[in-house]
Amino acid sequence: MGSSRENVLIVGLGLLGASLAMALKKAGGRRVMGWTRNASARESLLSKGALDETAESPDSLIGKADLTVLCMPVPQIGEFVVEKAALWRKGSVVSDVGSVKRLIDEQAAPALAAQGVEFIGGHPMAGSEKSGPDAAFPGLFEKAVVFLTPSASSSKEAVSKLRALWEAAGAKPCETDPCSHDAVMAGVSHLPHVIAWALALSVLGKEDGSEALTRLACASSFRDMTRVAASSPDLWTGIFAANKDRLLDSIVHFQERLRIMKEFIEQGRFEDLREDIAKGKALRDAWHSDKYGDRA
Amino acid sequence: MGSSRENVLIVGLGLLGASLAMALKKAGGRRVMGWTRNASARESLLSKGALDETAESPDSLIGKADLTVLCMPVPQIGEFVVEKAALWRKGSVVSDVGSVKRLIDEQAAPALAAQGVEFIGGHPMAGSEKSGPDAAFPGLFEKAVVFLTPSASSSKEAVSKLRALWEAAGAKPCETDPCSHDAVMAGVSHLPHVIAWALALSVLGKEDGSEALTRLACASSFRDMTRVAASSPDLWTGIFAANKDRLLDSIVHFQERLRIMKEFIEQGRFEDLREDIAKGKALRDAWHSDKYGDRA
Repeated sequence: MGSSRENVLIVGLGLLGASLAMALKKAGGRRVMGWTRNASARESLLSKGALDETAESPDSLIGKADLTVLCMPVPQIGEFVVEKAALWRKGSVVSDVGSVKRLIDEQAAPALAAQGVEFIGGHPMAGSEKSGPDAAFPGLFEKAVVFLTPSASSSKEAVSKLRALWEAAGAKPCETDPCSHDAVMAGVSHLPHVIAWALALSVLGKEDGSEALTRLACASSFRDMTRVAASSPDLWTGIFAANKDRLLDSIVHFQERLRIMKEFIEQGRFEDLREDIAKGKALRDAWHSDKYGDRA
Repeated sequence: MGSSRENVLIVGLGLLGASLAMALKKAGGRRVMGWTRNASARESLLSKGALDETAESPDSLIGKADLTVLCMPVPQIGEFVVEKAALWRKGSVVSDVGSVKRLIDEQAAPALAAQGVEFIGGHPMAGSEKSGPDAAFPGLFEKAVVFLTPSASSSKEAVSKLRALWEAAGAKPCETDPCSHDAVMAGVSHLPHVIAWALALSVLGKEDGSEALTRLACASSFRDMTRVAASSPDLWTGIFAANKDRLLDSIVHFQERLRIMKEFIEQGRFEDLREDIAKGKALRDAWHSDKYGDRA
């Protein structure tokens, strides 16, 4: 094997990047290089054996990489690629883990294509409201769907390389296009985050003398519905900005559903409300049983 | 001890009622009688040792009860009390586990007061999206807050009896008044349920050709935010109807928070959005660390 092993470079060693490094090292068969701005984070991962190599600057590592996965916050990914584009080797493949794909693809793909380097976006459906390398673990991607967004010009070889990497990390690759990805993610992930923060502000931010009782009364339904409100404001503001129009569509669609339910309550149309609720329950139950085989 | 043991009657043996019976039997020191419409459910709990006594009709049991806890769906509680009021013994105490308190109190308290029986509402902050006696377990109320809503005319003895019962079940009694209870619950529990159904309908109910991708993309944030959408439509329509005005207030308050966030996104005011999100995160983090000592 030796030098024929694939050289993987992971840039950004937060929850996702560090977990990916750990998963790939655990799977074996690849050389895993990693870089992140924080020197103690990269040294700590190296000493734990989650990396084979690191360096003070990413530049030397980029030149050795067969496959690079950019695991930084969304707004930094395109910038990094544009700045460093000349450093990648011709024929190498660059991907990312950003929660939005169209904007990143528009920035990264042309900059790299000019160097003979392919960019293929990626987005693993894994993560947590926790962040940073201390929250990382090798099983994070186990059985998680990872969306890959190749374009018409992507080579079969590049797509295969990327699929194989994610399969080694335990994930299930699924191909789609950047626009469909962003429209769907706006509804299933970005909207729930907006709602979680709006709910936390609405319930815990009320200043009407009921604060102590409110905090006592908040129980498991509130806890679970606001779990993702513990996520990073910086990270998510970046995601919302990068998927602005599709997010607005999904907020409007949700507002309309909520308005209808509110109208039923206002007008005392409780049988209509019950039917709406029963339909929502049926959709959610069917999805849950498909996805989890009815494990809670 | 023998005949001096307190006779507790639980009417309605679903998740809450059956769990309360189990918890009280486990704690010991009380005779636990139970009745529910479903004959096989009450016989099964009797044979499992979760009840000391049951009967075909609740009427004979009511006459023996020192303390009765009504564990039926909200709309049935007031009706049951009004219908059976004459059967309770003078000096006995009646309570319930309904998620709304003002309406039930207005129906039950006067009907029982006329018989020399005290009604004191109760509401344990425990439950699950699952329902029925098969989901019951004796630890359901362990460390859960239980709101008790005595009135100015409630006797100290009656309140003590009720507190002792819930403490035996592992819960932490907390006194408040029915109106404050209902206003707070509208925000911390009823609103999250409405949002969960609106979100499930909005995301999974879309018919635009993206259904398969959507179902694949729904992950842990969507799952947790819609967990309570698996709850019973009948049960919750009854709760919403019984707390209509306070629920409408909390929906309006939430809609306004969401509208502000949407406006920030629309106008590209992402620094304002980030500040809003950071405030929501801080409120939620502080609540969570207070409540759970920072266990996830």
